[in-house]
Amino acid sequence: MSPRPLIIQVINPNTSDAMTATIAAAARVVAAPGNEILAVCPQEGAPSIEGHFDEAIATLGVLEQVKLGRDAGVDGHIIACFGDPGLLAARELATAPVIGIAEAAMHLATLVATRFSIVTTLPRTLTIARHLLHQYGFERHCAGLHAIDLPVLALEDGSGTAQQKVREQCIAARDRDGSGAVVLGCGGMADLARSLTDELGIPVIDGVSAAVKMVEALAALGLRTSKQGDLAYPLAKPLSGRFHGLNQ
Amino acid sequence: MSPRPLIIQVINPNTSDAMTATIAAAARVVAAPGNEILAVCPQEGAPSIEGHFDEAIATLGVLEQVKLGRDAGVDGHIIACFGDPGLLAARELATAPVIGIAEAAMHLATLVATRFSIVTTLPRTLTIARHLLHQYGFERHCAGLHAIDLPVLALEDGSGTAQQKVREQCIAARDRDGSGAVVLGCGGMADLARSLTDELGIPVIDGVSAAVKMVEALAALGLRTSKQGDLAYPLAKPLSGRFHGLNQ
Amino acid sequence: MSPRPLIIQVINPNTSDAMTATIAAAARVVAAPGNEILAVCPQEGAPSIEGHFDEAIATLGVLEQVKLGRDAGVDGHIIACFGDPGLLAARELATAPVIGIAEAAMHLATLVATRFSIVTTLPRTLTIARHLLHQYGFERHCAGLHAIDLPVLALEDGSGTAQQKVREQCIAARDRDGSGAVVLGCGGMADLARSLTDELGIPVIDGVSAAVKMVEALAALGLRTSKQGDLAYPLAKPLSGRFHGLNQ
Amino acid sequence: MSPRPLIIQVINPNTSDAMTATIAAAARVVAAPGNEILAVCPQEGAPSIEGHFDEAIATLGVLEQVKLGRDAGVDGHIIACFGDPGLLAARELATAPVIGIAEAAMHLATLVATRFSIVTTLPRTLTIARHLLHQYGFERHCAGLHAIDLPVLALEDGSGTAQQKVREQCIAARDRDGSGAVVLGCGGMADLARSLTDELGIPVIDGVSAAVKMVEALAALGLRTSKQGDLAYPLAKPLSGRFHGLNQ
Amino acid sequence: MSPRPLIIQVINPNTSDAMTATIAAAARVVAAPGNEILAVCPQEGAPSIEGHFDEAIATLGVLEQVKLGRDAGVDGHIIACFGDPGLLAARELATAPVIGIAEAAMHLATLVATRFSIVTTLPRTLTIARHLLHQYGFERHCAGLHAIDLPVLALEDGSGTAQQKVREQCIAARDRDGSGAVVLGCGGMADLARSLTDELGIPVIDGVSAAVKMVEALAALGLRTSKQGDLAYPLAKPLSGRFHGLNQ
Amino acid sequence: MSPRPLIIQVINPNTSDAMTATIAAAARVVAAPGNEILAVCPQEGAPSIEGHFDEAIATLGVLEQVKLGRDAGVDGHIIACFGDPGLLAARELATAPVIGIAEAAMHLATLVATRFSIVTTLPRTLTIARHLLHQYGFERHCAGLHAIDLPVLALEDGSGTAQQKVREQCIAARDRDGSGAVVLGCGGMADLARSLTDELGIPVIDGVSAAVKMVEALAALGLRTSKQGDLAYPLAKPLSGRFHGLNQ
Repeated sequence: MSPRPLIIQVINPNTSDAMTATIAAAARVVAAPGNEILAVCPQEGAPSIEGHFDEAIATLGVLEQVKLGRDAGVDGHIIACFGDPGLLAARELATAPVIGIAEAAMHLATLVATRFSIVTTLPRTLTIARHLLHQYGFERHCAGLHAIDLPVLALEDGSGTAQQKVREQCIAARDRDGSGAVVLGCGGMADLARSLTDELGIPVIDGVSAAVKMVEALAALGLRTSKQGDLAYPLAKPLSGRFHGLNQ
Repeated sequence: MSPRPLIIQVINPNTSDAMTATIAAAARVVAAPGNEILAVCPQEGAPSIEGHFDEAIATLGVLEQVKLGRDAGVDGHIIACFGDPGLLAARELATAPVIGIAEAAMHLATLVATRFSIVTTLPRTLTIARHLLHQYGFERHCAGLHAIDLPVLALEDGSGTAQQKVREQCIAARDRDGSGAVVLGCGGMADLARSLTDELGIPVIDGVSAAVKMVEALAALGLRTSKQGDLAYPLAKPLSGRFHGLNQ
Repeated sequence: MSPRPLIIQVINPNTSDAMTATIAAAARVVAAPGNEILAVCPQEGAPSIEGHFDEAIATLGVLEQVKLGRDAGVDGHIIACFGDPGLLAARELATAPVIGIAEAAMHLATLVATRFSIVTTLPRTLTIARHLLHQYGFERHCAGLHAIDLPVLALEDGSGTAQQKVREQCIAARDRDGSGAVVLGCGGMADLARSLTDELGIPVIDGVSAAVKMVEALAALGLRTSKQGDLAYPLAKPLSGRFHGLNQ
Repeated sequence: MSPRPLIIQVINPNTSDAMTATIAAAARVVAAPGNEILAVCPQEGAPSIEGHFDEAIATLGVLEQVKLGRDAGVDGHIIACFGDPGLLAARELATAPVIGIAEAAMHLATLVATRFSIVTTLPRTLTIARHLLHQYGFERHCAGLHAIDLPVLALEDGSGTAQQKVREQCIAARDRDGSGAVVLGCGGMADLARSLTDELGIPVIDGVSAAVKMVEALAALGLRTSKQGDLAYPLAKPLSGRFHGLNQ
Repeated sequence: MSPRPLIIQVINPNTSDAMTATIAAAARVVAAPGNEILAVCPQEGAPSIEGHFDEAIATLGVLEQVKLGRDAGVDGHIIACFGDPGLLAARELATAPVIGIAEAAMHLATLVATRFSIVTTLPRTLTIARHLLHQYGFERHCAGLHAIDLPVLALEDGSGTAQQKVREQCIAARDRDGSGAVVLGCGGMADLARSLTDELGIPVIDGVSAAVKMVEALAALGLRTSKQGDLAYPLAKPLSGRFHGLNQ
Repeated sequence: MSPRPLIIQVINPNTSDAMTATIAAAARVVAAPGNEILAVCPQEGAPSIEGHFDEAIATLGVLEQVKLGRDAGVDGHIIACFGDPGLLAARELATAPVIGIAEAAMHLATLVATRFSIVTTLPRTLTIARHLLHQYGFERHCAGLHAIDLPVLALEDGSGTAQQKVREQCIAARDRDGSGAVVLGCGGMADLARSLTDELGIPVIDGVSAAVKMVEALAALGLRTSKQGDLAYPLAKPLSGRFHGLNQ
């Protein structure tokens, strides 16, 4: 018997339609037949996310989308920005699983290699990656952190420059770090993983597609976000002003 | 020569005026003579903060206040909620130092005892405390985490029940954990530290007053938030809609 | 377009046919439609695995099965014993992904809860669980380790006693540890996860089914075991005697 | 109402009068108006401290000074050598707070940057710095350790060579480590922090002045060294011979 | 009164007779007068051990030898391969102490230096060394990992090339890592330690001889492998087929 | 050929002659035939060591004895107080190996059990034990810390009360902690290890005798304290006053 088709909400936390499209496409390529990718981005917010401040801005949009998705009965939520902004807050709000793309990619990397490297955009985001490695428990599994030193939106400028630099850093990860796998550190790199995996001969992992499969896995197992303890629904309290829409 | 008087912005991240007053009073008691405490809270948001979701909501208000404070030329910003919501994002935005009250209290606790315990409100917030201990490096310095199992606003209900439970848990921290100091895990407990310190015979530390002294210390030393690397000002980008006010 | 059906080899490292059947059934329940579960166990070895020594014995059988599976072109290998015996050795040997059930369950637990507990069989196996938590990076995510103090094969004796004790320890995990999820620490508990999840109201995770979905996820993403570095195929060397069959 | 003026004892653990003067001056620059800096050094001991042995020698002098300071009723003690020699022993002896300059500088560095570097004198002292990072919990916050490869007293030789090398290593810390702040790893560098902060554009932190402000902070908060548990006063026992003066 | 002479079983886990001889010789040089070195290797297995797979193969032979040794009443067992294959399984089986050579060398290195480096054979074995450092608690004590990039058996080819490369890497460990000691990462390097210690002026430690002295130390102290908890004898269960010989 | 007889200096850091005798006896029981135990204690200092302050006092005497021992050409130095006071300073001073009894006992405990407990005297010394576990890398190997809540010298009062409490806590370590071994946390317990090992059926380890065997092991291997890096001899500098005797 075939399982019920799933609706998977993929939330691009920035407001870039082009990046939402890139992310949606990467998600659809791997989704199991019949499953629907519901790609959304906040209407208001930051066009790209490159620091703690941008993440804080983006988190509000993520939460609103999670609430919309929950009310629509989606089967899982994906936060498609490498810093996994708002992950635990979203888990409080959600009934279904919530997966961050950094989290998904890092988890899978440890399943196919003993050590991995991360290739991301601007150097200032490396601190965010370090914090996530630390929070998720993968500090010792990471052999190197690389930044291409270009902003996120350079991935969407059509020149291919950013893509070329990603490729170079992936090679450095393999040859200089001696890493067995590479984690791509930006949702906007989602379309590069397959070809780099083929060319470089090591797993190059995109978090968007990884997260889609994690949501599908959890759904198939009947596992949803625990509502016991600190991930229980937020306590009902009157959220005022522009937060009104987030009231329970 | 007396140093220039400082303006210290104390941001209560929730919308409770009563708690803002409690916090402001605690700050003023310890501020150096001449220094001004500018106590603020967001006009919109959550009336109390008891989880990851509430923290995410509160962060936006914190950032707006930090921007207002920065534009007004304050000498330091304090985030007066024990989860230190938005701390690194605020540091990106700020020129002056930004101190969280959990951070301030934990740091000082390690200076007067080899191990400390934390006494907070609802059990669901213990995860937040654990994450902060981990992020700040104080996991091994913490001998116990205690929750009084009452919501934050019970501290403002006038009954004294919450205060009594805080006292009981502080005694448990001293006698059962063997801790040399206690960190109070909520801005609303700011007024209890002195009397508990006296009664219990061990340092009981309130983060609000601790943070005031840390800001004063950094200001006196000419130390401000580093603008090198990941705490550099947010990259200028058009923030849309309700985030417009946060544009650089 | 539907993806190609997969053949997933599920290796029960002990020689118990009853447990192999339990494991196979759990795997088949969650496998995507069309995917084949190839459940095997070594013909020689230990009837159950309850310590470092038993694991070492079992590892040889695991490796032989992995080699057979590889030669048969399976799409993934699952090591269905909670200690994940021979995991890295099997990854050297394999082209496809290799997943241990402890690993799979622990990874998924961190995606649906901030802290989980483990419920296993004999106390002497707790050390193995501790080592895996440490190796995988999940030490801080684990809030408690529980043993039912019955041997593995008690799960197959038909009396239901072991199952009842598992249930009791899961409740202790939820109520005393405050864990948001429970990881079942034995392949022989694979059939209990669903009903305990329903009854207890928190995710109770079986590693066998979890590993099936992880293999499917990796396969869909085109990710196989990295052959770069320490997981490269074993160096060709003449293995003598009874190890002859493992020659490359 | 102005707080009572404080007497802060600054203990230079070595016998160099020139360095005591440097340290005293740095302390006085930042002390709050009215507070008195009581700068002392042991009459007997080592002229500089550059290793574990030197630290052990220095500790006795530190303890004697702490006892003298305690008997004189000082409001805080500062151990002005970057290894914080005798810190916990001094805390047992003291009623008032005791702060080490390494500790003070490291704590403040984490408040203004996510990662800092240390610049110290001889390479052999780097191990001491590593141990302190580990003990205080700041291992992950430190991005680099630099030694100028000159002895401590080169800072007092008037040539400026050591000072120039400190400056070079601070630049390396900023540009090569990518650190957001620098901690100066010797009491004899106390006078360099301000100008390097200004020149390099990142916080360069001197522990002597940092410690003065920490003592003032603790005093203002009514926090003294915990006398609960392992920092309780030393048990009274007859100390013989030259240790007689340390009897309780 | 002279202690009873001991019989110490030194197990070379690979099938190389030349390496067994090298190991035996190194063991005999340091054994206390009267003590007997019983050097053995499995009759079947791998001629060298250079990865997780090789280790898994070797473990079976190690266990069989431990059982033989136990039945013969030896006073200690040494696993003379740097990965310490089968260490905990062997401890379950044994009554006497079981020592791995990596373990022995690392332990002693921390007694004579604050940081040490490891020099081993193929780069792919570095992961094994990292795992051991992590398991034994010596991660922070290790300042560098070096591979000579030659297979284990190159140490037995008579050319001296491998030996020369070991020497070079030991020098790099001393001069580039700044390590105070070097651990030789292969049983086949056992004969190099003394001369390198003399030439390089730092302790260069061979695990085989180190393990002999650890066994002698434990025996003299009356300390044997704990049979309490997870190292208790394996539970009696019918091991089938070629494992029959390992039945209890 | 018999090795040259060794002279092993066992330094009791306190001034108690009774305890020096206990320690000397324990050392002599296990020393290899022909080796001489040179038991010493400082003439001035503290009669017992029960805290950071006492340790600091004791360190000076330890260093003086190490210097005397070095000048006399001893083959190793043992610091026979469970806090290992002055260990790294003594290593700078020494040519021969220097071993602390806490260090020795902890190292050996990890060789015979996967987890051990510590039984010590006063609760206030537990912090010292925690710091050592952390410094040596054995935090995760320690399952419990127990204090008998009697001062060190109660072990010498002839009543047997302290000895009985040690026994009770060892039983608690075995039965409640589930530890496979116990480390005795005081030099004054040195005579209890053998009988407790026999009675309790698990290794109960005394650091004094353990350290003797470690010194003998290092001597037999030709390994001495590294003089490379931070353990190089102290830099020659004029130590003044009562420290004159420590001049190089």
